[in-house]
Formats: sequence, C-alpha cells, structure tokens
Amino acid sequence: MKRRLRLGMIGGGQGAFIGAVHRLSARMDDKYEFVAGCLSSTPDKAEASAKELGLDLSRSYPDYKTMAEEEAKSKDGIEVVSIVTPNHMHAAPAIEFLKKDIHVISDKPMTSTMGDAYKLMEVIKSSKAHFFLTHNYSGYPVIREMRALVKNGELGKIRIIKGSYLQGWLGSKEEDNKQAEWRTDPKRSGAAGSVGDIGSHAMHLIEFVTGLKCETVAADLTTFVQGRQLDDDASIMIRMSDNVKGNLSISQIATGQENNFSISIYGEKGALHWSQENPNYARFSKVGHADQIITRGGAIQNENSYASIRIPPGHPEGYLEGFAQIYSDAADIILGHKDKNKLLELLPSGESGLQIMKFINASVNSSKNNSIWTDLSSI
Amino acid sequence: MKRRLRLGMIGGGQGAFIGAVHRLSARMDDKYEFVAGCLSSTPDKAEASAKELGLDLSRSYPDYKTMAEEEAKSKDGIEVVSIVTPNHMHAAPAIEFLKKDIHVISDKPMTSTMGDAYKLMEVIKSSKAHFFLTHNYSGYPVIREMRALVKNGELGKIRIIKGSYLQGWLGSKEEDNKQAEWRTDPKRSGAAGSVGDIGSHAMHLIEFVTGLKCETVAADLTTFVQGRQLDDDASIMIRMSDNVKGNLSISQIATGQENNFSISIYGEKGALHWSQENPNYARFSKVGHADQIITRGGAIQNENSYASIRIPPGHPEGYLEGFAQIYSDAADIILGHKDKNKLLELLPSGESGLQIMKFINASVNSSKNNSIWTDLSSI
Amino acid sequence: MKRRLRLGMIGGGQGAFIGAVHRLSARMDDKYEFVAGCLSSTPDKAEASAKELGLDLSRSYPDYKTMAEEEAKSKDGIEVVSIVTPNHMHAAPAIEFLKKDIHVISDKPMTSTMGDAYKLMEVIKSSKAHFFLTHNYSGYPVIREMRALVKNGELGKIRIIKGSYLQGWLGSKEEDNKQAEWRTDPKRSGAAGSVGDIGSHAMHLIEFVTGLKCETVAADLTTFVQGRQLDDDASIMIRMSDNVKGNLSISQIATGQENNFSISIYGEKGALHWSQENPNYARFSKVGHADQIITRGGAIQNENSYASIRIPPGHPEGYLEGFAQIYSDAADIILGHKDKNKLLELLPSGESGLQIMKFINASVNSSKNNSIWTDLSSI
Amino acid sequence: MKRRLRLGMIGGGQGAFIGAVHRLSARMDDKYEFVAGCLSSTPDKAEASAKELGLDLSRSYPDYKTMAEEEAKSKDGIEVVSIVTPNHMHAAPAIEFLKKDIHVISDKPMTSTMGDAYKLMEVIKSSKAHFFLTHNYSGYPVIREMRALVKNGELGKIRIIKGSYLQGWLGSKEEDNKQAEWRTDPKRSGAAGSVGDIGSHAMHLIEFVTGLKCETVAADLTTFVQGRQLDDDASIMIRMSDNVKGNLSISQIATGQENNFSISIYGEKGALHWSQENPNYARFSKVGHADQIITRGGAIQNENSYASIRIPPGHPEGYLEGFAQIYSDAADIILGHKDKNKLLELLPSGESGLQIMKFINASVNSSKNNSIWTDLSSI
Repeated sequence: MKRRLRLGMIGGGQGAFIGAVHRLSARMDDKYEFVAGCLSSTPDKAEASAKELGLDLSRSYPDYKTMAEEEAKSKDGIEVVSIVTPNHMHAAPAIEFLKKDIHVISDKPMTSTMGDAYKLMEVIKSSKAHFFLTHNYSGYPVIREMRALVKNGELGKIRIIKGSYLQGWLGSKEEDNKQAEWRTDPKRSGAAGSVGDIGSHAMHLIEFVTGLKCETVAADLTTFVQGRQLDDDASIMIRMSDNVKGNLSISQIATGQENNFSISIYGEKGALHWSQENPNYARFSKVGHADQIITRGGAIQNENSYASIRIPPGHPEGYLEGFAQIYSDAADIILGHKDKNKLLELLPSGESGLQIMKFINASVNSSKNNSIWTDLSSI
Repeated sequence: MKRRLRLGMIGGGQGAFIGAVHRLSARMDDKYEFVAGCLSSTPDKAEASAKELGLDLSRSYPDYKTMAEEEAKSKDGIEVVSIVTPNHMHAAPAIEFLKKDIHVISDKPMTSTMGDAYKLMEVIKSSKAHFFLTHNYSGYPVIREMRALVKNGELGKIRIIKGSYLQGWLGSKEEDNKQAEWRTDPKRSGAAGSVGDIGSHAMHLIEFVTGLKCETVAADLTTFVQGRQLDDDASIMIRMSDNVKGNLSISQIATGQENNFSISIYGEKGALHWSQENPNYARFSKVGHADQIITRGGAIQNENSYASIRIPPGHPEGYLEGFAQIYSDAADIILGHKDKNKLLELLPSGESGLQIMKFINASVNSSKNNSIWTDLSSI
Repeated sequence: MKRRLRLGMIGGGQGAFIGAVHRLSARMDDKYEFVAGCLSSTPDKAEASAKELGLDLSRSYPDYKTMAEEEAKSKDGIEVVSIVTPNHMHAAPAIEFLKKDIHVISDKPMTSTMGDAYKLMEVIKSSKAHFFLTHNYSGYPVIREMRALVKNGELGKIRIIKGSYLQGWLGSKEEDNKQAEWRTDPKRSGAAGSVGDIGSHAMHLIEFVTGLKCETVAADLTTFVQGRQLDDDASIMIRMSDNVKGNLSISQIATGQENNFSISIYGEKGALHWSQENPNYARFSKVGHADQIITRGGAIQNENSYASIRIPPGHPEGYLEGFAQIYSDAADIILGHKDKNKLLELLPSGESGLQIMKFINASVNSSKNNSIWTDLSSI
Repeated sequence: MKRRLRLGMIGGGQGAFIGAVHRLSARMDDKYEFVAGCLSSTPDKAEASAKELGLDLSRSYPDYKTMAEEEAKSKDGIEVVSIVTPNHMHAAPAIEFLKKDIHVISDKPMTSTMGDAYKLMEVIKSSKAHFFLTHNYSGYPVIREMRALVKNGELGKIRIIKGSYLQGWLGSKEEDNKQAEWRTDPKRSGAAGSVGDIGSHAMHLIEFVTGLKCETVAADLTTFVQGRQLDDDASIMIRMSDNVKGNLSISQIATGQENNFSISIYGEKGALHWSQENPNYARFSKVGHADQIITRGGAIQNENSYASIRIPPGHPEGYLEGFAQIYSDAADIILGHKDKNKLLELLPSGESGLQIMKFINASVNSSKNNSIWTDLSSI
C-alpha cells in the first residue's frame, strides 16, 4: 500500500504566499498527508485558516510548542513539519521539532541572524531527524542535469561564474504590501534585504551546481527607495574555492523584471547557462563544438542527475498546471461556484468534442480525395 | 470545511502516461479525493495498479460497468469519473457514467469514430451530469488571457490563423513503444493518426481563443514511416467562420521537435502569438505600436480571463514542480529510499543553510566597510 | 592592381528602394565601379538621379536601348548591368544587354509573365554573358552553411519542409505608397501579389538549401484588403521532388510582422531551422543528440559552403552598418551637414576617448589595490 | 555633383582585421574615396598592401610623417585619415595629422597610456580638424533610439546599470595569433587587456546611452591563462554621476561566447535592454505596462535619434551583406575566379528564375481552381 508521510505546518495561514506553495508541492507527488498545523501566530487566524484548509481542528494548534509536544506524543503524530514563517521565526520552531526528532522542511534562508543559525546548526547535528531548506531552484531537472555535467568534468576546471537575480516589484515604496512588509523589516528579515531574500537563492544554486564554496566577497549594497531600512540592490564580487572568481547582480528594484534569475558557469573546456524564466532549457558550450541546447528529459539526460521527469520533453513543467486548471474548473462547476457559467464557457464540452471529431474526419476525407475542400458539416 | 469531490478513474494503470497526469492535476488544487477506479482492462493489472496507488481495494473494479453500478448505488460513491483509456474506449464508459448522472472528465479526442461521437453526444444532452474533455492547453493562463483580448476586440476583425503542432518522436518505427502502439492503430485511435492525436489540440485551441468555428478543410495527410497504418504528418488549409482563413502544420515525424505547438492569430488591428514550449508568454502586436510581451499574471492581465495565477509573474509555472521536487526527495530520504544517500547530497541542509547565512552577512559587512573583500570564514 | 568591374544600372532613381540596396551591395566588397545608368523611365528624373549619385552625365541615358548600344560600342563600356525596375520591366532590358553579351544582375522575380520568362530564357541560353537574380537570402553565410550540411547528408533523406514569409505592411490600403503601388498592380507585378513578391523568395531558398525541385502545388490565395487587385495572403501545400512534402504560409497582411521569413527542413536523421530576422544563427537537430546552434563563422563551419565571413562570429552582420554609421556621420560633420552639431554630440570624440582611458586605468589601479574604490578623477 | 571626402589610412595592411572593416565602412554610404595610405610599419608590406587594394602607389607612404607632410602640401591631399594601428601607435600619427588640420578617425581606445592620452587631447583642442573614435556600437540605430528614449525621460531617474561584454576566444594561449598577440602585450595594448580592448566599448556605450559619467570603480582583474601578461577577465563595480550604481562583467575567456555584449539600464519609471548579438531589437519596460520590443525603424522610432535606416524594419542590418554576397560572387564568376564553377551553382540563374515563375503561376492557377493540385510542369 502507498505510504504517505504525515505532515504539519508552522505558518502559511490566510494571506500567506509561500505556505500554499509548500502545501501544493507536498501534494504533487502524493507522498505527504497534511494533518496538523499552527498556521498563524494569532490563534483566531490559525483556526480560521485550518478550517479553510479542511484540517482536523483538534490538530490546529495555537502555538508551535504545544504542537511539537502533542504531535510527538501521538502515535499518529506528524513525521515532518514545514516551517513557512518569516525568517526570524524559522529557528525557534525548527529547534523545537528537531529536538523531538521530527523532520523539518524550512523555508530559506535558514534564520534571520548568524547567532540563530549557529544555534540551530548545533541542534541539527544532535537530532536524529533531517533538516531541509526549500532552495527550490535546485529541484529543477535541468539544474540537476547541469550539476551532473559539471561533476562529470564536462566544463573542465571552472574559472568564472556570473549570476544575476533581478526583480522589480520593490521599485517603489510597497511596505504596506504583506509580502514586502516583513522582507524590508530588519527585525524579521535579518541584516540584509534583497541579498537575504533572493541573493541567498543565487549563491545556493551556484554552490549546488558547481560544488564550489564561496570564500570571500566584496559587496556594494544600496537602498534606492527612500525610507526603506534594508538593501534593495547589490553588486557583489565573489571569490570561490579553487580560485574561481565571479560576480552577482542582485536587485529588487530592477524595473520591469519579474523573476529574472540566471547563472552562467565558465570552465576551461565548456560553459553552462540557465535562466529561471525558461527553466526547461540550458545552453551548453564546449570548446570547438557548436553550442548545444539541453532540454528537460532530452537527448543528453544523465542518469545520475536525479532529475524527476514527470512529463515528456517539450512539455514545459507548467503543462501540469494547465492540466490541473481543467480539473479545478470542472470541480468549481460541479460544486456550483458563483462563476459556474463563465467557467462552463471555457471548458471543453461535448459540443467542442464533436466539432473536433468532425475536423479530424473531414481532414482524413479531404486527404483521401486529393485534398479537395471538405466541409465539416458534411461529416 | 473544505469539500473535495470524490473521484474515480477508468484506465491509467501501470505503464500509462496520461492517467498519472490526470491524478496529479486533480491533486494540485486539492479539490478532488481519488477513491475508486477500474485502472486496467486486465483485472489483475487493475488490482496491482490500485494497490500501488493506495486505493481502497474494495473500490478497485474489474470492469467499468460494475464500477458505475456500485458507485452510483453508494451514498459516498464517486461524483466524477476520469476516463483516460485509448480513444476507442472513451465512449462506452462515458455513456455508462453519464447515464448514472456521474460527471465525466474524459481525455481527448472525444471518441475514435464519428458514430460513437454522435451517440455519446445524445447521452450528454440527456444526462444531468457534466461532460468535460481535457484539452489541457486551454487551461494555460496566458491562453485564457489571449481569449479575453480577442473577445475585447483588441485584434479587430480576425483575418488569418497559422497553427503548427510538431513532434519528432514517431520519426522512426516505434510501434513497440506502449505510447506509440495504440496511437498508430486505427482500431483504437480512429481514422487519423497525428491529426487525431495532436491536430485535435491545435484546432480546439484555435477555436477556444478566437471563438470561431472551422468550416471546411483541404488536407494532405501522409504516412512517412513505412508500415505505419495512420498519418504521421499533415498539411491542412482551413477556412473558419466569418471568412477567416489559415493553415495548420501537424507532424509527429518532425525530427528533433519535442512538443512544439504554436498558434498565431492575425486581425485587422492586432495579432497574438503563443508557443507551448514557453507557455507563460505571448507576443501581442497592435498596428502602430511596438510589440508587447504578455506575461502570466503580468501588467495587462484581464480580470475576466479566469486565468488562475498560483504563483507570481516571472515564476514559470514549472516553479511548482521544482518546489515539489524538494518535498519529494525529502520524503524519499525520510522513508529510506535506496538512493537516500545520493538524494541527501542534493537537498539543501543545515550546512548549506549556514553557508548561505555567512554569504549574506559577509556581503552586508563588506558593503558597510567600503566594499572591502570579506571572508565568509570571518563571520 | 585591383580590378573592378564596370557596372551600369537600369532603374533605381530617386524614390526607389531596391536600387540603392543594389549599389551599396556592389560597393561593399569593392569589386564594382558604378559608371553608367538609365535610372528612370522619365528622362528628366533619370538625369537628376544621375547627378545626385555623382555619375558622369555623358553616361546617363534616357532609355535602356541607347544605353546598351552606346556602352557595348565603348572600349570602357560597362561589363555588367543591374536591372532594378518593377517586374514587368525586367525582361526587355535584360534581353537587350544579354544580346550585347553584357552580364545581367536582375532583381527578382525573373519577369512578370510566363511568356516573358520563356523568351528571356532563350536569350540567356544563347548569350555569352551571365544572368543572375538577386535572391539575396541565398547570400547569407548561415544559409550556405545549411546547404552544405544538407548536401553532406547530415539530415538523411528529407521528408518535410515548412516555410513562412510573413509581412504586415500591406494590412491596410496603401496603394498610394510607391513601394505598394506597383506591387499590387497586375500589369507591373504579374499574376500574383504576395506569392510573387515574397513567396518567390521562400521557394527559391527552399530549393537552394535542399537541392529539391517543387513539382506540384495546391494553393489558396486571398485578397483581404478590399479593392486590391492581387493576393495579399496565401496558404500553399507543396510537393517537391523525391517525395518531399510541405507547406508555405505567405502573407503581407500579417499584422505586426516586419519581415518574418523562416524555413524548416526535416529529414530522417536531422533537421535545420533558420529565421531571417536573426540570420546569423540556425538550429540543427540530429536524432539522439542535443540540438546545436550554428553560428555564422562558428565551430562547425563547412569549408565548401562558400560563406563569406567578413567579420568574426558573434559580430552580427549589421556590425558593419554600425561601423559605417560612424564614418558616415564623420563625413557629414566634416562637410558641414545641417545637423552637424547634433551629430557632433553623437560621435566619440577626444573627451570621450580620455574618459574611457581614465576608466581603463582606474580599473587597473583599483584591482592592483585589492579592489579599492578608485575615482576616475584621480587618474 | 556628389562630393566624396579624400581618405587616407595608417595601418590596415595585409593580415590586419580592423583596417578592412574601416575601409568597407567608409565605402558603404559612398561618402569617402580611399586615396592614400601608410598601410604598414614595414615599407615592403606597406607597398604590397597598397597594390592589393588598388591604391595609386605614389600615395603609398613608407612612414606616417612623410605621408602627413606630402598630403598636407598637395592640393588634392587627403582630408581625413583613419588610424587603425595597435593602441600604442594611435597617438603619434593622430598628433601629426591633427597638427596639419587633417581630420582623424582613430580606432579605440584613444591611446595605450594616460600620458599619450593627455598629450593627444592638447593637440585635439588646438587643431582645426576633428578627432573621432570608432566606438562603433554607438552607430547602431537601436542604440541611438535608446539614447533618445533616455533623453526624453522615458526611464525617469536612472538607478542602476548592468553591463557585460563576454568573449571566449582568448580562453587558451593564443598569443601566436596576430589578433591576440598585440592585445596581450602591455607595450602595445596598454595597462589593461580585456578591460582596454572590450571594457572600453562597454563603458563608452553606457555613457553614450545614459549621458552619465563613470566616477569611481572597484575592480577585480584576473589573468586566467598562465603566462599571459594582461588581464583576460574582470568584474568591475561602478558608480556613475547622479548616484547611479552598477557593475560590469568583462571577459575574453568566457568559453563559448562569441561577442556577447549586453547592457541594461534601469530607471524609476522604465528600463531598457540591448544585446549586440541581436542588435536590431531592444526591450523596453515601463512600470505598469507590458514590455515592448523596440525594432530598428519600427513603430516607436524617434525622429531625433539620428538613427540611419538603410533598409526597412525586419530586414536585419546583415541583409545588406547577404545582398552584397550575390554581387561579390557574380563579380568573381565574371572575372574567372578559380571557384567560378562552384559559385555558379550557388547563384540564382535563369533556370532558377524560370522555376520560381512556374511556382508563382502554378500557385495562382491552383487557387483559381478551388485549390486543386497543380503541376509546375503544366505551366
């Protein structure tokens, strides 16, 4: 029988963004069952959120300590907890659950302060449970393929690394926005703004793909929007292990950029380029050869890349979301959603099925008759 | 409390591709609960598949008729059934469930023959239940946005339509491949090969976006691979309602193409272009203006497009799969998967969390000290 | 000593577009000297045009017959003539000069009518001179490289061809425009509009790259703009020699398209894709390999492609125009052009040279001093 | 009558790359006549080069001093001189000709040392002649359009600038290559390698487009190839006037890169992006609007951009080179070039002209007959 891990969640209540992403991601491959939570630091909101998500209310907790205690005691208690709170609230619950040997999947970055990070690290070392961070970009199949190519020596000795992570959504004062608000507050976010929020992804991915470690940095952080407390832009020159050099451009005020995260790795024998906004492809240069396009699941997929291929090459990963949309709309129609009639217009129905059948058969008939023009109404 | 629809499935057992896609899609927005199935026409395989998927075995049926009967009788019986069998097996189960007023979500095309299509259409008309086809490309947010733009008159009177759906995977004889095998068998697939399998998507999407109907075709279907029974390539000239003209290129022997499905709609005042391999973007031309790039959830999103935006612009829809990968690997590690140690190398751990914290804080310190080079080991 | 061919021109006077393109092209590699012309069918305009272009007025002729006669008699008469008139005026002068054994470079298509084409062909066969058509797209280095790849068998047996040539500039009635006017007049253009004007390029390039011949067509030509006399859009299904099939989309009413001319060639073993709007690159698919990007002068350049490489890979061919712009502006400034002061603002001067020298040396100094911030004013 | 400037050249003899580019550029718009030169510092080679280029040998000089003297004295002496020598040989001839009030067009950078630069600047100030540097990228129409947009305030207050200029051709030791050799020799190139050679272009273009001045830099220059004397890679953080910040990535060891030069300018209200490898397009973001694609000569061209549009939008600037190729091949055929027969296969001839005429007319006939398949042989 299929075995699903019992999963709890800290944070992620109403109005949160990343909590829903974590739950959806846990559901996708059907390996988790979401059974308990402390979804908000405000008990009322925690309960309302639990109701909305269909959680058994006896397992909706007002605080994470109680939750850790109760779930650890229960025979069917959670085996894993997701922590999706702002940065300053990562360490304390992570420590609590790790001490109970409950596995932790935490949003990044690890903590808001170095002090918390070292403290948490001590607990991780002594716990029997695992601790994982959702540096989600390292889960892309093409990224894992790139890592395998680097490991196989396809690039030769690496020399330089160029990274950029550019967003524009903080280009003007948006601190009343829930997403922007805690990110620009040093108490909750930590010492850095853009460098902590997205620079952290950039550096993790570079280390993940190359296997190198960042050793020293020379940085120029700027706060462009007046009144903001943390950096919203940064240029960082980097030196990595093995005498590799490079630089990073990090910005959340890069007007017009949505989520433009790109890395380039240059070695003596080859180079690799990847850009997050078209993540199913990478460009692979080898000295003396034409550049090659690596595709998710395509011709040069490495067996040891551990890249999950849920759907065939050329079906971008978003294919599944498009498919899910049909299912989601169908459910809304069936359950009588207020936009039911609008949705009915959108969903492929019997009429459209019949029309397409006529198109197929008219095409076959036309071709059989020397490509004569053939009316669908004749079918 | 959250309400999930009880879902059953016909087909989609071991070795099938599209069944897993349907289940994952049903799970994504958490609106369905998968509770019953007749997962294969071979009873043994049906049961083995049910076990693998964690289905209650009392609701794993040897044939779809029994399933329809039993589930219709049960108070907690399924409310919706997904039909994911080869084309020739769409009509019979669909009719059976619709007669019991159980909603049907069927894979496309509707049926394998015109006779079945008309028969099914009669039942659809008389049933209280809904019938939906998974023309999944119409679920993409950018496609729905395009439809809204056309409806708003942004293109003016439409004049021409160009569509192409090109794959290369049937370029050589692959009939021993399970996916290829039934698609090239006229008994199971119907009168057309590539035109039925992917041409059907192309025509549905064109009608969906434009609101026009295809009226007449002049087609040239070819079978390039020797011994194959159905077309693997087609050129089709089309005439649509409202004096619109156009053409389609359909191929499954277009060497090197993965799933290159593109449409262009040209009107008197504007034009729209979309390509499935980069589905979060469309190009929008307006006479006298610079071309614009429409992005999923971006600046010109139409409220009435009913385009679900699960994640912000610039996060391609595949973002969720990358995220899910981290969750999936974490589960495998926790449950002791055989590749556990390899996967542990891949997942962001405490060590990597600490390293990134050092990177963030070294960057802040460097910037505060006139961009002086700052070692991470000093943090 | 360098030897330049003495060149004359028929047509291409004031207001013409393609004549200037022919002259610039003749100048580019310095193999021609432009010495005589009959630049307009209106004698006054012919002379005014000759003056403007700096032609010796004694060799500016009022009609092409006189020109052929006089130039053929002269010891230093023209060796080559360019014919850049509208289509209906290609045949007569071509025949005249060929009969005098003067080489002809004619704009495409060959003539406006089949009758003229056969008549001209007879003369070509009996003349000692060469006859060339400026199907200019066959002069692109990457196109010639593609031809060499096909010839080398890299694609295996060719199966299908997809071509499209899409423009939007005739989307509304523009017949008062000099360029549009003769193109839409059957007397001057011939039996076809868009098919003759740009479809001719598409078919030539397909035959050029593949070595195949078009044998039979099934076409649907449409005139969308009311009152226009010739087709402005066409879908054409094609059958080529060697059982190759394909289709073409031709349009001059494809809203928003500038000059979107693309071809794809699919064989059993490989495929090639090229698009004119980014002409220095092609995509090359080989079964079982990652797609490769062919670049002008890049890694897999074939010695026998006869592709002229004036500048290194990565410098798009337009690089030369950018360079020429600096020279052109400098000449205008020196000669006291009315916009002299505006142009002076644009051209890199001593001040900007000095500033860049400071940038270079400040960068060197900074790097020598542990990347310390270094002011350019200190240099 | 047309007036052409009399042009001389210093450097650019056999084996040189940039000299030929200068001459071709001078020829393109027919505003110069190349009449004198000192094409090499080796007198024999200077004369051989002059012969090859068809120069009047009495105006081929053994040294630039004699040339300046003689040409200045002559009534028909040169009015402009191009200096296309290695960097260390820019200053001395420039000074010589400027003192004679002969205009100078010099390759960049201005000189090899700061001392020379200041000395030359003094002479420029006192000369009646103009001094221009061929920062050729500022001659691209789309770049000039971007400059006009910035000047018009379309981006609002500029905040950040990102530039990168990446090549890979110096990735391994290539100092025996003529192009590489002087560029990596500090005596001839100056204090910097990659920063002087291509970083100079990047900074000039940034200043050109934005109107800002670079004020201070923090740089990390590296020599990756062992034994090389100058930097081949650099990361440079920059601070510009008006509190603008940014960074540059400069490399000549970026494996696989051909000539990847890109700039992005971000302001409070908008942003602009341009990449040299596809130079006819730019991306223009405005807050609250969909991104727009600027095309050369396209919909939003600014009258005051002084962008020369030789050919219509969508015809990439390289169009002219393709056209010129046909002319060049025709000349070679006519003059009996050794590859004459191979070239004859490539050029569009009467046969291909006739074939295309048949294609056009068969398409018209087919369409008139309800799209019936029509053989070209029937025409």
